[in-house]
Amino acid sequence: MPIVDIHTHVYPPSFMDLLRSRTAVPYIRTFPPDTSSRLIILPGEDAPSNPSTSRGRPIGPDYYDISKKIEFMDKHHIDISVISLANPWLDFLPSNEAGPIAERVNNEVNELCNQYPGRLFAFGALPLSASREVIVEEIVRLSEMKYVKGVIMGTSGLGHGLDDLGLDPIYEALQEHRLTIFLHPHYGLPKDVFGPRVSDYGHVLPLALGFPLETTIAVTRMLLSGVWDRFKTLNVLLAHSGGALPFLAGRIESCINHDSHLLNARKSGGQRSIWDILKNNIYLDAVIYSHIGLKSAVDASGSDRVMFGTDHPFFPPLDTHGDSWPSVQMNYRAIQDAFDGNPKAAEDVLGDNAVRILKLSF
Amino acid sequence: MPIVDIHTHVYPPSFMDLLRSRTAVPYIRTFPPDTSSRLIILPGEDAPSNPSTSRGRPIGPDYYDISKKIEFMDKHHIDISVISLANPWLDFLPSNEAGPIAERVNNEVNELCNQYPGRLFAFGALPLSASREVIVEEIVRLSEMKYVKGVIMGTSGLGHGLDDLGLDPIYEALQEHRLTIFLHPHYGLPKDVFGPRVSDYGHVLPLALGFPLETTIAVTRMLLSGVWDRFKTLNVLLAHSGGALPFLAGRIESCINHDSHLLNARKSGGQRSIWDILKNNIYLDAVIYSHIGLKSAVDASGSDRVMFGTDHPFFPPLDTHGDSWPSVQMNYRAIQDAFDGNPKAAEDVLGDNAVRILKLSF
Repeated sequence: MPIVDIHTHVYPPSFMDLLRSRTAVPYIRTFPPDTSSRLIILPGEDAPSNPSTSRGRPIGPDYYDISKKIEFMDKHHIDISVISLANPWLDFLPSNEAGPIAERVNNEVNELCNQYPGRLFAFGALPLSASREVIVEEIVRLSEMKYVKGVIMGTSGLGHGLDDLGLDPIYEALQEHRLTIFLHPHYGLPKDVFGPRVSDYGHVLPLALGFPLETTIAVTRMLLSGVWDRFKTLNVLLAHSGGALPFLAGRIESCINHDSHLLNARKSGGQRSIWDILKNNIYLDAVIYSHIGLKSAVDASGSDRVMFGTDHPFFPPLDTHGDSWPSVQMNYRAIQDAFDGNPKAAEDVLGDNAVRILKLSF
Repeated sequence: MPIVDIHTHVYPPSFMDLLRSRTAVPYIRTFPPDTSSRLIILPGEDAPSNPSTSRGRPIGPDYYDISKKIEFMDKHHIDISVISLANPWLDFLPSNEAGPIAERVNNEVNELCNQYPGRLFAFGALPLSASREVIVEEIVRLSEMKYVKGVIMGTSGLGHGLDDLGLDPIYEALQEHRLTIFLHPHYGLPKDVFGPRVSDYGHVLPLALGFPLETTIAVTRMLLSGVWDRFKTLNVLLAHSGGALPFLAGRIESCINHDSHLLNARKSGGQRSIWDILKNNIYLDAVIYSHIGLKSAVDASGSDRVMFGTDHPFFPPLDTHGDSWPSVQMNYRAIQDAFDGNPKAAEDVLGDNAVRILKLSF
């Protein structure tokens, strides 16, 4: 049985150069006298009012040296990784630069996979600030690349969120070329919602809550705008086990069913429920750090639709001498605890689902 | 076995008069030529830019006539209700009015319970805009009232959220007098996070997501600020099964454990984990509309800490001729499905827990 990590990020070398050349978020710099580099990617992460997190996080070879990815995989018994560009992807690029940079970065990522055939596959990145024609051309190009099995995407879309009708040509092309969207948060929630003490708590509120809540809102907006009524076979893999979607799906359905306008539209248009979409269009990763959330994800989508992931190179051990990463151990243990007495389902989640769903052969 | 509804709201007559006398949110008015009253309570709900929800919701006797509550209980086989003032409670009152109005409203609610002895108990409301002395006095007064078993509270606290150290005297008084806090959302999330199409979707995004996400953020801020390290026996009942807390608890713990500053503080201060608090200080209602979320709530806190609720009079049937409310049916069915083969646990959640935890005898 192979173990497959479908949630694992990389900044390929040319993207590192790009981040190093910039002075606004996202960027990389050193703060002398410290000689190590810091990665600053989150909105507001370098605001002077936020001293405790104003220097982002340390960035080392784990982020860009693919041999480090393989080392990490070996250490954690991972056979195959489906790598993806880390956030904020290409969202921030000026329109005219996005197309060529996407091409270069995607080629580079595909080439990284080619260095370790059979061990690496990839989600491509889209030049979402470019024209729709350029985006669709890149989708077609990605669909022909040997190791690319989908695209990673944030929640901003073309700038107005994923319920924007302007995305329809993109969704159509992705559906047509059978590329799964790996939907990943980045923008979080406005800092104010976390209150005046937010910086006392480091990154916990934006990362532990802002990220999954952003995903939950984005996917609910997709549902409400009828994305899956128009694109019935569009597949979306949700980061962090869907944010909080499996837990909140019942409340979402109840709220729709108690709104006469929406309910009538649903009845007359045959619109699909979130439960239907969870079972037929949504995949969930297993990056949830607890068997409790994982069981809920499996109950919502099925053990044939949930896939192991690590979020490497984020959440590295605080103790750098450790052998195995606690963040990875937690997610392994969650699978073990969730499927106690059902080793087949555990194997599905650990790797078999990813091989089947993403067609990991070449 | 009694069936107990611990999440059920009322606006007693004097509070109705107050809402009718106001012209800013929260308020009640009629929009001619329509002769029926509308309740406008949510922030921004009357903004001209939000036409689809600018008229709140219809408000009828279900909201204020206690005989309608009893009728609803009888129809749904509910033996006991623990009634609470509906949002936004007393949060909006000028400081000098809050104390006397709290006294009047709490007396009125207690008197409503007295009209149906054994069938009604209550959570009181706090005059949070008043001075701390006035708030603590009201807590002491509430603790001596025959039918009051706790207090309902929003996430704003004294205006800075529930991680505000200024709340410590309030938490201390509530702990000392063994009054459970029923923590309930109201303020949601800023409208912008739902995107430009939010009003296309009626109330769904603010109610299905804004409310539970608000609760999740509030309780996580309480955890991070050490409320339960200072008040080890302070009990909090979370609305809507904790928002998304049971699902996200693993990620919250992982984020804390990957922040050296917080981890060191935890190690040196013996701070408690969210899992510990979920099992020892938090209770969850079962207002979640699905067995999937409910199982997760039960896994997180235990079947001895989850309690049935209806959210009456909110989410009434769209079809007014219906006998039983679909929103209530969904929550009954969730309990049935979650505890298939374990009738004892189902009975605990349906009523026995509430009787034991809230000491529903007089």
